[in-house]
Amino acid sequence: MLKNDLLLRTLRGEATERTPVWMMRQAGRYLPDYRKLKEKYSFFERCQRPELAAGITIQPVDQVGVDAAIIFSDILVVPQAMGMEVQMVENKGPILPDPIKQYSDLHKLHRPDVEEKLGYVFDALRLTKKELDGRVPLIGFAGAPWTLLCYMVQGKGSKTFDEAKAFCYTQPETAHALLQMITDTTIAYLKGQVRAGADVVQIFDSWGGLLSPGDFENLSLRYIRQIVAALKEEVLTIIFAKGAWHGLSAMAATGADGLGIDWCHTPESARNWAGPDITLQGNFDPAKLLSPIPVIRKEVTEMLNAFGGRRHIANLGHGILPNVPVDHARAFVDTVKDHQYR
Amino acid sequence: MLKNDLLLRTLRGEATERTPVWMMRQAGRYLPDYRKLKEKYSFFERCQRPELAAGITIQPVDQVGVDAAIIFSDILVVPQAMGMEVQMVENKGPILPDPIKQYSDLHKLHRPDVEEKLGYVFDALRLTKKELDGRVPLIGFAGAPWTLLCYMVQGKGSKTFDEAKAFCYTQPETAHALLQMITDTTIAYLKGQVRAGADVVQIFDSWGGLLSPGDFENLSLRYIRQIVAALKEEVLTIIFAKGAWHGLSAMAATGADGLGIDWCHTPESARNWAGPDITLQGNFDPAKLLSPIPVIRKEVTEMLNAFGGRRHIANLGHGILPNVPVDHARAFVDTVKDHQYR
Repeated sequence: MLKNDLLLRTLRGEATERTPVWMMRQAGRYLPDYRKLKEKYSFFERCQRPELAAGITIQPVDQVGVDAAIIFSDILVVPQAMGMEVQMVENKGPILPDPIKQYSDLHKLHRPDVEEKLGYVFDALRLTKKELDGRVPLIGFAGAPWTLLCYMVQGKGSKTFDEAKAFCYTQPETAHALLQMITDTTIAYLKGQVRAGADVVQIFDSWGGLLSPGDFENLSLRYIRQIVAALKEEVLTIIFAKGAWHGLSAMAATGADGLGIDWCHTPESARNWAGPDITLQGNFDPAKLLSPIPVIRKEVTEMLNAFGGRRHIANLGHGILPNVPVDHARAFVDTVKDHQYR
Repeated sequence: MLKNDLLLRTLRGEATERTPVWMMRQAGRYLPDYRKLKEKYSFFERCQRPELAAGITIQPVDQVGVDAAIIFSDILVVPQAMGMEVQMVENKGPILPDPIKQYSDLHKLHRPDVEEKLGYVFDALRLTKKELDGRVPLIGFAGAPWTLLCYMVQGKGSKTFDEAKAFCYTQPETAHALLQMITDTTIAYLKGQVRAGADVVQIFDSWGGLLSPGDFENLSLRYIRQIVAALKEEVLTIIFAKGAWHGLSAMAATGADGLGIDWCHTPESARNWAGPDITLQGNFDPAKLLSPIPVIRKEVTEMLNAFGGRRHIANLGHGILPNVPVDHARAFVDTVKDHQYR
């Protein structure tokens, strides 16, 4: 039994005594205890050793007071489990040295047995669940197929992911075969996360905003829709497609329980497009946590009032930045917890 | 007298025999003749020597057949003229080694005599005008004050420009003093460009899309509005704020003659928000020029039909990518020129 199930009730559309709050990337570099572990263990050691991943996952629950834990991991564990090499290069981001460029490259990939290849994530979820002891719900996650394709084809981060797009435009059949392989793997992976104790799963489409509305539907949303449909009966789902403002009402129609929104929406415009029957999550500008604390308090209060306290999960509009002081993160969380709606 | 004034008539809202076409960054790295000059001369030599800048400006008119020339230069010549050092580092983008961090740093800056500090741009415009000999109109440009502040404070490119934002959130008075200095300089600079022969000026707000709607109004649009108002009687103006989809109707209300739009809008949504009384410019996904030529033709045709041939300038939704084959750029331009509206 959960002692704090605000997040789950809000996703189900139930009225709650206050607005739940968590922060994307809350288990991360702005926390000194995380940075200490980072000095000692490589990125994938931190993901793969359940006691490290569980400890990192719980840090922001203990230290910042968020209403949910999100498992410490990375979206690129899925391409890795499918057979690709993924290197995490400090201050440079991920490198996939042998990217997918043509149809014959798909033979390098396989649909993995997720228990075998990604069992360490499930172990971390089980251990976290045990250590949380019902304090807050636990969120699992995966990357959206389009975002994973971006890395698998481009081979590294990019402002435009032009090579990934060119791959889709010049070899659409290969692109769709790859997207379907990623989708199938992701469904199996997320079902495993649910079996291991995830109360909610979030799908991160970090690069959905690079696509035109037509391409977003064709290359991203149709696969997200499959994932949501496959998970719908088992778990609460949240979609977050950064920058894909035009897709909000189509995303709401997938049957997901929640939609992450970034700070380019006003709460009013987001609600208007998404309709009344879905929970909205967001949308504080992460850079605004670099403001003085009184400014943070004032702007968080304005955001909360604009969302109006119904079907809203307070969060940032993207991941917390590594240079945010911990007391600023706490001011964000505390302002939400103390808020009285007018 | 201009032999081809399609761009100007379209901006004025007059009916034209066909849709004009040009491409942002059309004078640039995808052209082999440009790359040859790049090997021989540094970036700022190419900007500062009028015969080089004019030659580069005219290359796409001769080689790709666009309906307008845009002067070869860079938005960072303004911070440079205001007293900041700007280095262009190959494959890394601009570096400003001594960025603005606090109020006292503003004393390093001055409102320059634009004829003295930026006269080389005016010389390049005059020479280009002469060499074009009325073939097509000549576009001048400047960066929006917010985008210039981003570089002047962050000191380099960034995905989030979090330090620039933090500067604005923690030192708003200093930020507004800086934005006003940039605005005043930009107005003088663009007036100089008009005297030197620019038929149209475009304001590039490359980082407008990083701001929330409230911050976009406060930190960006209010200064763009001043610039448009100051230029209105002298020249046709186009605003392009990449990613600032929510600001489209406010931008249309500035009195600008044209609005650049990116590919996250559909032509229909952009027209809907901007209203009928302004010309729209865009909005082909630059990565789509990496598609096979038949795909380019098909998608450009769809775009043209969606805009409907009224108050539309065909363009990309951002700068052309350096890896686009020249014949693909030509296919884009030719498809527009040959198009018959249904």
